[in-house]
Amino acid sequence: MTRPSAYLDHAATTPMLPEAIEAMTDQLKRVGNASSLHAAGRQVRRVVEESRETIADALGARPSEVVFTSGGTEADNLAIKGLYWAGRPRRRVLISSVEHHAALDPAHWLADSQGAEVELLEVDELGRVHPDTLRAAIERDPGDVAMISIMWANNEVGTVQPIHVLAAIAHDHGIPFHTDAVQAVGQLPVSFSGSGADALTLTGHKVGGPMGVGALLLARGLTPVSVQHGGGQERDVRSGTLDAPAIAGLAAAVSTAVREQQALHHRLSSLRDELIQRVREAVPDVVLNGDPEDRLPGNAHFSFPGCEGDALLMLLDAKGVECSTGSACSAGVAQPSHVLLAMGADAAAARGSLRFTLGHTSARDDVDRLIEVLPTAVERARRAGLG
Amino acid sequence: MTRPSAYLDHAATTPMLPEAIEAMTDQLKRVGNASSLHAAGRQVRRVVEESRETIADALGARPSEVVFTSGGTEADNLAIKGLYWAGRPRRRVLISSVEHHAALDPAHWLADSQGAEVELLEVDELGRVHPDTLRAAIERDPGDVAMISIMWANNEVGTVQPIHVLAAIAHDHGIPFHTDAVQAVGQLPVSFSGSGADALTLTGHKVGGPMGVGALLLARGLTPVSVQHGGGQERDVRSGTLDAPAIAGLAAAVSTAVREQQALHHRLSSLRDELIQRVREAVPDVVLNGDPEDRLPGNAHFSFPGCEGDALLMLLDAKGVECSTGSACSAGVAQPSHVLLAMGADAAAARGSLRFTLGHTSARDDVDRLIEVLPTAVERARRAGLG
Repeated sequence: MTRPSAYLDHAATTPMLPEAIEAMTDQLKRVGNASSLHAAGRQVRRVVEESRETIADALGARPSEVVFTSGGTEADNLAIKGLYWAGRPRRRVLISSVEHHAALDPAHWLADSQGAEVELLEVDELGRVHPDTLRAAIERDPGDVAMISIMWANNEVGTVQPIHVLAAIAHDHGIPFHTDAVQAVGQLPVSFSGSGADALTLTGHKVGGPMGVGALLLARGLTPVSVQHGGGQERDVRSGTLDAPAIAGLAAAVSTAVREQQALHHRLSSLRDELIQRVREAVPDVVLNGDPEDRLPGNAHFSFPGCEGDALLMLLDAKGVECSTGSACSAGVAQPSHVLLAMGADAAAARGSLRFTLGHTSARDDVDRLIEVLPTAVERARRAGLG
Repeated sequence: MTRPSAYLDHAATTPMLPEAIEAMTDQLKRVGNASSLHAAGRQVRRVVEESRETIADALGARPSEVVFTSGGTEADNLAIKGLYWAGRPRRRVLISSVEHHAALDPAHWLADSQGAEVELLEVDELGRVHPDTLRAAIERDPGDVAMISIMWANNEVGTVQPIHVLAAIAHDHGIPFHTDAVQAVGQLPVSFSGSGADALTLTGHKVGGPMGVGALLLARGLTPVSVQHGGGQERDVRSGTLDAPAIAGLAAAVSTAVREQQALHHRLSSLRDELIQRVREAVPDVVLNGDPEDRLPGNAHFSFPGCEGDALLMLLDAKGVECSTGSACSAGVAQPSHVLLAMGADAAAARGSLRFTLGHTSARDDVDRLIEVLPTAVERARRAGLG
């Protein structure tokens, strides 16, 4: 008996929307470099500029504020390194302790080799950065803060930050504020101008668009130093041939995802609440991590006492349930999640955790399948843990 | 009367090969992050690793020597910045004066803000770096050279460098040698191990693969400092979600292009020689730039005395002939080409030049169309220049 597996890892990557596949494959058959002056080049340039407008419209930004990148990691690198370098001689970089590695690692590299002083902002037990924490950190030496980076919503535990409040505090001090909104776009209402952020990261493959493409929204007047130098594309902020097919796919995905965001939120949060309820019934001592209220509609993250997350993941996978222990980018790494440790979890609880994330193709079947196999898998993982 | 235009700008970007479109679109319909541990993730990982082996086989490299990037610009940035940082406290970076901006600009940035001493290696009137030039530059202070970067074949004038000889000189001094082979792969026989280079840049959309993907081939034992930090993909050299669909498309394109390279070389060089001959007959005072012998099979680059290249380009475009004044990445920039200036051309000759480049879809029709409209266009451009 083979059944399709239950894919509960939409936060790692979500299937492409049909609209995005169509927009991208149409463009794959054409030829032209958006920087070329001839008709073929101009036609591709038009596709890129229309895509830029579509994305800007969907996310409350101006077209000139959209800088295309190869994805979320590149956008985070550009925001953090670029705004640090642009802000020198200021040396301080304030960043939350629960960021994705795509933000944390650039910051640590700046500290290791570029003279930055990086300060990790504490979070509470739900994973939230308290506004007072940010305010106090800034006020220790406001004139020396080059930039601040705090993610909109956490990729592991799903906690949504009070991003408007945090951005306003940065603004009170005239400090550039970046937010990694990779998980937020399409799941939450996201307006760049409304958020108060100066820079915002999004990526294609988390919103039903293609891999290998993303964008940094960048407020007018803010010019990060380039991380990728070359032909001077994207107003000299990000060089490299513009990937028109992927950009067309990204625009189709963002506009569809944003248009359907409210309906998706409603559907997913209800399905997620059911998933949480049924997991609690199936495994009574399970602990839900993250903010029970302010969380991504598709995210359920648990600690299973007495289990190793990796072992449980593989047992579930063998039964056709696909999930993750945390960030896909850290999969296979034996270290406990820095996010859970920052939230005050002990190392055992951190290692015994799993993330189930829902997306546009999720249905009750997926939850049924999980609940069907979870109790046995947990029991086995516990026996293995004791062995 | 509408006829399809004659696309003579394959060096800017060339149409995707059907094999590459198919491999990529197949993958667009699947879901999975190559870093995920579950079955969907492992399946995508398998696609990535098979693609890595295909590319390594085609280019005389080991699979572990392939680092996927978002394209040629990123690969050049990684090689030049990464090897400079890894080589510190050595400060010198030697780079040819005819490199693409994707190599020149990272080097200049290292000089401006990271303490590098960048030296531009002179070329002769055909655009060649003489081995003695490289040897003399190294020997001024060999212990202080962090890395050397010289392109395999020039994107504007098509001159092929004596890359094996240059790499051997670098090796005699134990200095890492990088070559941007973006234009060479698929047009010339390229073997990474045979070349003696330690790092080699290639990109998808110049070999019939997708945009937004490329690779840096990197000899074992060489570890550049990352330019893009994050989840630690690609053995921590290049972080970011692996773009499996584009990687599958790249592998299909590279293997097809390498398999057909010899036949394409034969066909294109003969078509290019015909183009050169007929352009000379049509415009007797035209000057062919670059090496008449050691040049890319698809490249013909001319100076048209008394013309502005941009004006001539637009006149040809209006008649359905698409070409460029030089690098697509510098299109629209009013400055004369740094490549031609480095070869000793005066500014007027540099501004009055056009590049015609052939590729896998080129046919005699394209040359016929060019020759049909070129004399009138040149005459008009000359009148405009005089006016």
